Amino acid sequence: MSEDHDLGAELTGPVLLGDAEVRELLDAPCAVRAVRRALLEHHAGGLAAPPRLRAKLGEQELVFTAGQLAGAGLHGFRAYGTGGGDQLVAVWDTASGALLAAVHGAELGPRRTGAIGAVAVEALARPDAVRCGLIGTGPQAWTQLWALAAGPLRPETVTVCGRRRERAERFAARVEAELGLPVRVAREVREAVAGQDVVIVATNSPRPVLEAEWVAPGTHLSTLGPKSPAHHEIPPELAARAAVIVTDSPAQAGAYGTGHLLGPAPLTALGAVLAGSAPGRTDAEAITLFSSVGLAGTEVAVAAELVRRCREQG
Amino acid sequence: MSEDHDLGAELTGPVLLGDAEVRELLDAPCAVRAVRRALLEHHAGGLAAPPRLRAKLGEQELVFTAGQLAGAGLHGFRAYGTGGGDQLVAVWDTASGALLAAVHGAELGPRRTGAIGAVAVEALARPDAVRCGLIGTGPQAWTQLWALAAGPLRPETVTVCGRRRERAERFAARVEAELGLPVRVAREVREAVAGQDVVIVATNSPRPVLEAEWVAPGTHLSTLGPKSPAHHEIPPELAARAAVIVTDSPAQAGAYGTGHLLGPAPLTALGAVLAGSAPGRTDAEAITLFSSVGLAGTEVAVAAELVRRCREQG
Repeated sequence: MSEDHDLGAELTGPVLLGDAEVRELLDAPCAVRAVRRALLEHHAGGLAAPPRLRAKLGEQELVFTAGQLAGAGLHGFRAYGTGGGDQLVAVWDTASGALLAAVHGAELGPRRTGAIGAVAVEALARPDAVRCGLIGTGPQAWTQLWALAAGPLRPETVTVCGRRRERAERFAARVEAELGLPVRVAREVREAVAGQDVVIVATNSPRPVLEAEWVAPGTHLSTLGPKSPAHHEIPPELAARAAVIVTDSPAQAGAYGTGHLLGPAPLTALGAVLAGSAPGRTDAEAITLFSSVGLAGTEVAVAAELVRRCREQG
Repeated sequence: MSEDHDLGAELTGPVLLGDAEVRELLDAPCAVRAVRRALLEHHAGGLAAPPRLRAKLGEQELVFTAGQLAGAGLHGFRAYGTGGGDQLVAVWDTASGALLAAVHGAELGPRRTGAIGAVAVEALARPDAVRCGLIGTGPQAWTQLWALAAGPLRPETVTVCGRRRERAERFAARVEAELGLPVRVAREVREAVAGQDVVIVATNSPRPVLEAEWVAPGTHLSTLGPKSPAHHEIPPELAARAAVIVTDSPAQAGAYGTGHLLGPAPLTALGAVLAGSAPGRTDAEAITLFSSVGLAGTEVAVAAELVRRCREQG
């Protein structure tokens, strides 16, 4: 374990952390930094992120995404049931074999995904992007804004759109109260897309919720929800309009069956864009597309960051 | 969740338990009862125990054995690295999705295996078995005796044999001190086999450590160690002498490649013997053989028992 990541496991034993600790201790800049490091390490070959594993248990599946961060000397996994319920992320010190932490609950996963989303927007949106459209009002939509608001592309305006007006109003009020961002609730999805600099689509919809032609030149769009050939929240036609299509894990994206997003060009790894070894946005008029799949091992990186914060607090 | 297993998770949140709690709270009769219930539930079709899953992480693999006990309303998994280190067992309440416990360390796994071994010996050895031979002096050998000593076939004499005399002497002293059993350290392996009623082989040896002809009629023998066609601690010839070959999981045994133990007859499930739907020992002169593979889901059952004891203690 590198000095940078010395979490002092052997001395104190593992810790059990839940949603309360995640909310209290995991701030967005920390989560984004941890995920950015993991994405770069993945590009450099230092992050092992094998395909997810599934165990059939009665009516649901227990899913495991394992990962190892060689540079940090950490490994672990996230486990979750397809039927819902508490997720569990476990982190080990690879060298000593000591378990460092078990993090349970519902908060860590979406915050990890939010941090990946912020890294993608910062890498792919125009540097002067200030208007953010958001389709979706669930936990994944929330953590995208949570992470983005803490960074250099903190939106100046947010236009949010959801299926249920009342829920969208509550979401908007929470964003204003907790993140201090001015939010407008859109009457139609198109308002959250057209004329925005950044569009985040975070729904469970199996059918496209927007039309490709609504997306203006120069926009960056991230898709969080369904992305299989049969079920997808964004229209396949958007792929043809995009100058570049990026994902946090081309291997996992391939395993999901994201053929509809591929177009003629292969998916670019976000880690490669961050490292400067693959082009991201090349001009201000380009449409850039990010397909978020949840690179395995990033949960472990974020959980390790949480453990560090926890130990700092004593 | 049945009343019998109401662990009150929602009220208190999950608990993190380690080796100290396992040693203090998990007594052998409890562990054996939990495993016996799980084996019977497996036979009745109520225990889902899919094949183990493996994620390659650098030089080691992270292995997951998941299981669901439908009757108890519990599911979970054990995770361990092939490079060693802390194991982790997690238990969920299936209905609510609440995580009940995370149990880490090195103690739970061998105690679960010991409990399976005791159930097998009680099901397959002669009812008047009093002499126990033990080859091996590691944690797995210890927990076999720990579980067996708490039941109806508590040995009157133990003859132990290991590669290193000094370690065997220490093992014997610990057995006498903690389990109150009289122990003799054998000079040769044969002494721990010939004339014994129960022989437990718990080594890491890839080559047979005993000869088939040493095993007397009427003996029950359990093998804990390597059992693949290429690596096995007992001689394949022993299969031909055995009247019945039993395993805790025929499916897992098949996946391991235990062809050398199969002989002409298929492996019998221990749960089927317990339920009375498959014959075990049919006469006092028979040699019975138990091949322990560690039925997935039994770790979850034992961990749930530990959680219950923990909550009882307040």
